[in-house]
Amino acid sequence: MTLIMPAPEPDILSQRDALIERLRAILPASNLVVDETARRAYECDAFTMYRALPLVVALPETVAQVSAIMALAAEMNIKIVPRGAGTSLSGGSMPLEDGILLGMSKFNRVLEIDYENRCARVQPGVQNLAISKAVEERGFYYAPDPSSQIACSIGGNVAENAGGVHCLKYGLTTNNILGLEVVLMGGEIVRLGGKHLDSEAYDLLGLMTGSEGLLGVVTEVTVRILQKPAVARCLLLGFPSVDAGAHFVGAVIARGVIPGGMEMMDRATIHAVERFQPCGYPLDAEALVIVELDGTQAEVDLLVSVVDAIARAEGATTTKISTNEAERLQFWAGRKNAFPAVSCIQPDYLCMDGTIPRGRLPEVLAGMDAIAKREGLQVANVFHAGDGNLHPLILYDASKEGEMARAEKMGFDILRLCVSVGGVLTGEHGVGVEKRDLMGEMFTEIDLEQQMRVKCAFDPMNRLNPGKVFPTLHRCAEFGMMHVSGGAAPFPDLPRF
Amino acid sequence: MTLIMPAPEPDILSQRDALIERLRAILPASNLVVDETARRAYECDAFTMYRALPLVVALPETVAQVSAIMALAAEMNIKIVPRGAGTSLSGGSMPLEDGILLGMSKFNRVLEIDYENRCARVQPGVQNLAISKAVEERGFYYAPDPSSQIACSIGGNVAENAGGVHCLKYGLTTNNILGLEVVLMGGEIVRLGGKHLDSEAYDLLGLMTGSEGLLGVVTEVTVRILQKPAVARCLLLGFPSVDAGAHFVGAVIARGVIPGGMEMMDRATIHAVERFQPCGYPLDAEALVIVELDGTQAEVDLLVSVVDAIARAEGATTTKISTNEAERLQFWAGRKNAFPAVSCIQPDYLCMDGTIPRGRLPEVLAGMDAIAKREGLQVANVFHAGDGNLHPLILYDASKEGEMARAEKMGFDILRLCVSVGGVLTGEHGVGVEKRDLMGEMFTEIDLEQQMRVKCAFDPMNRLNPGKVFPTLHRCAEFGMMHVSGGAAPFPDLPRF
Repeated sequence: MTLIMPAPEPDILSQRDALIERLRAILPASNLVVDETARRAYECDAFTMYRALPLVVALPETVAQVSAIMALAAEMNIKIVPRGAGTSLSGGSMPLEDGILLGMSKFNRVLEIDYENRCARVQPGVQNLAISKAVEERGFYYAPDPSSQIACSIGGNVAENAGGVHCLKYGLTTNNILGLEVVLMGGEIVRLGGKHLDSEAYDLLGLMTGSEGLLGVVTEVTVRILQKPAVARCLLLGFPSVDAGAHFVGAVIARGVIPGGMEMMDRATIHAVERFQPCGYPLDAEALVIVELDGTQAEVDLLVSVVDAIARAEGATTTKISTNEAERLQFWAGRKNAFPAVSCIQPDYLCMDGTIPRGRLPEVLAGMDAIAKREGLQVANVFHAGDGNLHPLILYDASKEGEMARAEKMGFDILRLCVSVGGVLTGEHGVGVEKRDLMGEMFTEIDLEQQMRVKCAFDPMNRLNPGKVFPTLHRCAEFGMMHVSGGAAPFPDLPRF
Repeated sequence: MTLIMPAPEPDILSQRDALIERLRAILPASNLVVDETARRAYECDAFTMYRALPLVVALPETVAQVSAIMALAAEMNIKIVPRGAGTSLSGGSMPLEDGILLGMSKFNRVLEIDYENRCARVQPGVQNLAISKAVEERGFYYAPDPSSQIACSIGGNVAENAGGVHCLKYGLTTNNILGLEVVLMGGEIVRLGGKHLDSEAYDLLGLMTGSEGLLGVVTEVTVRILQKPAVARCLLLGFPSVDAGAHFVGAVIARGVIPGGMEMMDRATIHAVERFQPCGYPLDAEALVIVELDGTQAEVDLLVSVVDAIARAEGATTTKISTNEAERLQFWAGRKNAFPAVSCIQPDYLCMDGTIPRGRLPEVLAGMDAIAKREGLQVANVFHAGDGNLHPLILYDASKEGEMARAEKMGFDILRLCVSVGGVLTGEHGVGVEKRDLMGEMFTEIDLEQQMRVKCAFDPMNRLNPGKVFPTLHRCAEFGMMHVSGGAAPFPDLPRF
């Protein structure tokens, strides 16, 4: 499929030297990436399907520098794309040829740890896992744990509202942050939220979280920290059908048990994992569910027995319960290897990300099977079953003519299926450029117009990360928006009711 | 103090008959309150300091009726004030003389209970406690529990982002809702969120929550439900100083324990409560802390011993631990009587609502004492200590010349003190008209402008609940806004950066 992005501004390209000159007055030479070879390193994030060479890469270290860059970009009418660690799976930080790429990697300090208020103030470039490491000596941790947690930055987590295996119990990023410092489009610095609970006026903190870098540049994050649970135990459960596994997941939730994590994988993934590195998964099962229960010893023991009883009642054919930490980690080993393991079936895969109401799992899995059969491609399913967040891996071979396009089409069809049962296009990867052109499937014209009015309230000239999230080019005309061919696409005056 | 509200539109008053005629085409006669005596019942909410007689009261029963009323109001350029159960403590649903009061009380049905997705879909007029009652047979409940929970509606809870005793552990309203149906200013109906976790695009669900009825009219709410904890036990702890009590609270949190509730009251309140209806509170204590721990039996027993040890280390002079349910309820009885009890000290009180970082409790309590001494008024403190949400009760006698004004001034000074230590103007009561003119103390010009741009994105003509939250009249000019004396105060064109 062809990704249509706003065409580069010819004027801006001719102003590049002047821009760099002005940036040099703000940043030390080492914080500016001008050379083409060096800029290549920034041409995409972890969504590698589309690439662009940024006009220039700025790596500020202070909020004053960010503010000055934003003011300069406003003055010169230049686009900006913010970037954290570049691990986005939806192209959220894909650069623009006529835009400044604002890399936040040098904002890498933990500023304050405050146990009495159970929070930490960190800079946006700090890695997700580094926060937990900074507070582990007192037995605390930061809960959201995306798979990329050793690499991804907390600023990117805020932009994408990142999740992870444990978000079923502990929430997404939005449930675990208390405050932000943000630089607005004109360089103004605002603080949203803080160490206190709640805040008056509109919840701009919540609005900013998950806004995919389209509303402002985050320069500081106050996160909530939690005490590590005393004990964690796992159940490894095999079911004779995907339906049975899905019913089991629903039954656990309906019972009121909230596991620390509840992950599911299908037969294709189980077999791939066991071929890749055997870890004792049952090869006769059509679905495998791993349930982790955490808390105090007595609580966990009780919950393990409750979940075990539900599994038996729902027809589990395999039931293993971890009795020590080594066993618990072994149960997880296969899950953690799932992505590399499926790469052994086919050379390439597309990792999708959709979310559905948990109760619709059996139906969606059946529908996905039908789509896979129709397209003649294989799909391996690994997902956060507890919160209905699916990660179907569509397997294909890019060297075979047309397979990549078919895989992409199949991914879109799966997401449409998610939406049709009351689900949404993403759970934790964001919309970015990947799912931008599907937004119309999920949202009505009215929904999208209201979303774009909110964007206008922050960035009326559409200079911050344009081309992401909103199917802009399609929407321009309908929103009464003038699209200058080959030029920037500013938002129009607010429509009046 | 004088509350300055937008002056009524003379034009609108003359159009009243025409408006009523048009409303009769939308609503049955019984759903329209036209008569002056009947309209009097709606002249204020639980914040009784200011009153206004609404132009007309509309009581729709269907979303189509709400949509038609909103479209009519847009066509006729008439203001709208939405109202739930009218229990707001900040005047959030105070009517306007030239506006339609849109009462949502007839939206009173529980539409769906879905245990597999652990949620319930309810209409906005459903009482908070009615949701828990609807799911209690299966052992579930809805967590946020404002004191007014037998009366307040879930729609109002969403508007104010209501809290309660248990929000320390279970979160505010914003943490417990999954979806909304909202009617926008032109009558458009949108659905935000749903039964799934997360959603793509901007978090309009979060933005709507706590927006105090200024962005749209909520017509349906999907709430998360939780399983009731198996056991709850309480500790009743007396401390020799307010400082010691506050340090204890900080120590519990720093230890990583998250109690179901952690409430504190000062000497004045303890004595008032014991005079009102004795329940065994220690009269020698300067501060009383009630800690509730909930979960499984074993977990609760463990946590009780941990908290007990912290209390002893922090110098508690009284330590009682509930051994049965009757005792637990008795520990709470005094707390629940606190408001009527302080009414026996002085005929009137003003209940304030501010939130501070927990660590600053001792300092703020000392500062509050100093303010009280200076003003010659007494203050009784009852508060959600665990999450830093203070409810100082300023005692006064309205029959004494100037005392009410002094009480109001003192309340403002206390809130300024909260802000000065990094806190905020409200925890759960909202800004409304009560704290509107203090917003400038908390927010910078840039903050307020950004907030108002968001308001513009939903309601550019400022017709929905105007005069609340934003110090509009003061802000008009600075925001480049034309204020027509005696007329409506529409927002201006969006300022360009």
